[in-house]
Amino acid sequence: MLFDQITIVGVGLIGSSIGLAAKARGVAGHVVGVGRDRAKLDRAVQLGAIDSFGTDLARGVVGSGLVVVCTPVDRIGGTILEGAKECRRGCLFTDGGSTKANIVAAVAGRLPPGVEFVPAHPLAGSEKTGAEHGRADLFVNRVTVLTPTARTDPDAVARVAAFWRGLGSQLVTMSPEDHDRALATTSHLPHAVAAAAAVVTPAEWLPLTAGGFRDTTRVAGGDPDLWAAIFLENRGAVLAAVAGFSARLDDFRRLLETGDGAGLVRWLAEAKQVRDALGT
Amino acid sequence: MLFDQITIVGVGLIGSSIGLAAKARGVAGHVVGVGRDRAKLDRAVQLGAIDSFGTDLARGVVGSGLVVVCTPVDRIGGTILEGAKECRRGCLFTDGGSTKANIVAAVAGRLPPGVEFVPAHPLAGSEKTGAEHGRADLFVNRVTVLTPTARTDPDAVARVAAFWRGLGSQLVTMSPEDHDRALATTSHLPHAVAAAAAVVTPAEWLPLTAGGFRDTTRVAGGDPDLWAAIFLENRGAVLAAVAGFSARLDDFRRLLETGDGAGLVRWLAEAKQVRDALGT
Repeated sequence: MLFDQITIVGVGLIGSSIGLAAKARGVAGHVVGVGRDRAKLDRAVQLGAIDSFGTDLARGVVGSGLVVVCTPVDRIGGTILEGAKECRRGCLFTDGGSTKANIVAAVAGRLPPGVEFVPAHPLAGSEKTGAEHGRADLFVNRVTVLTPTARTDPDAVARVAAFWRGLGSQLVTMSPEDHDRALATTSHLPHAVAAAAAVVTPAEWLPLTAGGFRDTTRVAGGDPDLWAAIFLENRGAVLAAVAGFSARLDDFRRLLETGDGAGLVRWLAEAKQVRDALGT
Repeated sequence: MLFDQITIVGVGLIGSSIGLAAKARGVAGHVVGVGRDRAKLDRAVQLGAIDSFGTDLARGVVGSGLVVVCTPVDRIGGTILEGAKECRRGCLFTDGGSTKANIVAAVAGRLPPGVEFVPAHPLAGSEKTGAEHGRADLFVNRVTVLTPTARTDPDAVARVAAFWRGLGSQLVTMSPEDHDRALATTSHLPHAVAAAAAVVTPAEWLPLTAGGFRDTTRVAGGDPDLWAAIFLENRGAVLAAVAGFSARLDDFRRLLETGDGAGLVRWLAEAKQVRDALGT
């Protein structure tokens, strides 16, 4: 048992999966849930994702050795700073946010003595939201990125690393900025592209879609508020990724306009090589 | 039994699945395969997709009441015209091509008397290729689009419709031009977009991908030659679809640049509405 008690703030898909995994895998004893919607918290208790709950953050962090903040990304920094005022000395914070640099910047130098934040991003989740889609195995064999800085206490990093590893995930450590740049291309860009492909499709043509459309647009079913926040928090890197993508799509357009079959085959073969390296 | 004997030209994923389905569902007695690669044809026999084979089209169509052309789209028109010279009177042709207008134009007015072509596009398949991925249930509950013209014999349409329905598919009838315009958006655009998203991703970032990237880029694993041919055969409609997509992505870029959170949420919500209408 790594922690006798942990608090999870925000019990959506990621938060509830953390609770389920922490309990199923013996990583935490008691799991406290904190949220704004009592009905959702009640449901998370019924699902076994949390053991008790409250809507008050200050009270929710009392007695916990680790607080995992799983709110939308634009509220993570503020939640950590607020919770840190009330938690016990030695308490650790981590999070599940899809962006890192803004959160790290918001928290840096503002935590009380003896309280540490080790930023994390589990690369799991889906277009589904809510505790009812939570799964105890959501993190198994998935990568969780940790983005500690030079100022983060190494013991805190080790304990938070053990926590995420305890949930089943494989750890990768990188700087917040490198994380945001990479994820802009590997996660945020695909979301924008999927949404743009979905939105140009008239409803009357939906019966003429097949697996290709379904796969390519699947993440467009994600929560608009959550994703708007992610894009805004990682604005610069996402704009750069979109520009890179648009340039490549423009290459495609020019090859097609000029009827350059050999060029199109090369362009497609390069994409296939990347995709094949990933596996199915 | 709709046909005592049929010929399938091209025994890749679609052709072999047609053979498997036609035999499993009692739609055809004997299935002849025609191709260029004896090893692949041998394999298709072992898999039960075809009963006999040859590499000579003229001999392969002898004795068949239906010829199903499943070659790459840029060879379908020529294959039909060549096969039609050798087949028996009353023989029907259909195809599995992802584009229709160019094929219809290539064949129109050039078939011998008593030979009819009923163009078809089964909306099935995947990024996988080859007879070894063929499945007898590939067409079950999938849409097959038929694009006969005013000049196509109604009895021929009825018999070819019965064939595709016999394989398990649901039929939609539309003009070749309407088909190509719709499929440019529902199939060809997603492929181009998936490939562009894959190709901008450096190999060292692939470990930082998750389900969103996998889904959005999946079809980029498709065969470059097959897809280059599809894009070229449907050039005008694909260019129009890419232009529409780029305009929407440009809206996204502007909303993000100006930090318009409410606008981003609306843009994403519109995409979610389209995607949710489709189901998972």
